[in-house]
Amino acid sequence: MYLRLRTIGHVETDAGEEELRRRSAISKVLIDRRFTRALHGLQDYSHVYVLFWLHETPRSNRDFRVHPRGRKDIPKVGVFATRSPYRPNPIGLTLVKLVRRRGRVLTVKGLDARDGTPVLDLKPRDTWENVSRLRLPRWWRELDRQRKRTRRTQSKS
Amino acid sequence: MYLRLRTIGHVETDAGEEELRRRSAISKVLIDRRFTRALHGLQDYSHVYVLFWLHETPRSNRDFRVHPRGRKDIPKVGVFATRSPYRPNPIGLTLVKLVRRRGRVLTVKGLDARDGTPVLDLKPRDTWENVSRLRLPRWWRELDRQRKRTRRTQSKS
Repeated sequence: MYLRLRTIGHVETDAGEEELRRRSAISKVLIDRRFTRALHGLQDYSHVYVLFWLHETPRSNRDFRVHPRGRKDIPKVGVFATRSPYRPNPIGLTLVKLVRRRGRVLTVKGLDARDGTPVLDLKPRDTWENVSRLRLPRWWRELDRQRKRTRRTQSKS
Repeated sequence: MYLRLRTIGHVETDAGEEELRRRSAISKVLIDRRFTRALHGLQDYSHVYVLFWLHETPRSNRDFRVHPRGRKDIPKVGVFATRSPYRPNPIGLTLVKLVRRRGRVLTVKGLDARDGTPVLDLKPRDTWENVSRLRLPRWWRELDRQRKRTRRTQSKS
């Protein structure tokens, strides 16, 4: 079964790949004029999920497994067990900090979407998504440790 | 711009509306056979986002504002400031507890999607979505207080 979506806006950013991946980039989300009213009250939330279309990702192959973050030393896992862009439906989901709303222009922090990315939906982050006991794969925790170690080393040098 | 999606599976549940809304329902998510490999490793996560198609929601009107949870006593807000199903793109997003995975059948807790709902994507919940200081609208906090009060009263009677 096929379903149809429409874009509600797009991303504007001059951040590079590294900044996007680190979730440190400040980006703009420009919502189309006809959806301005749908934004009413959004500024009362500190955090918002952005759903977007991974428009530059090639269609995934039929294997549907990837090495986490391209690391060949980590065994492949299924794409649904990762946030890899190579998915049956190229939808990205990122929680961002809503810095400011001016009319139909949102300034957000932490969006890992490239300049020009089509936006599909915005959903406020509420307390339903708080989790007290989160379990994660061993490979995820190990990559997270490596990431933090690298950051500490860089900040010292 | 229009974009095309495909379903990756569907929801099976005999839970009623009230149980779904309370996020207490146990449901099954059946993934299509051709995507079984994409599930490899998903069982190592405790929580997963389910993206689904709100197939029974009528297309939203052009106002794009709603009374939160249908409460006429609360002023309208934009649909992007709510989790209302009346959105430009009828995509639902719910964080669920992954109870069990057997092959391509997931047993989940807390999915507020009706029986037969088409599923679009699964994404693991990791620590990037943890938020230390969450700000929410006044109407949201008031409705949450009312919900908790009702639940306490019900459990006493």
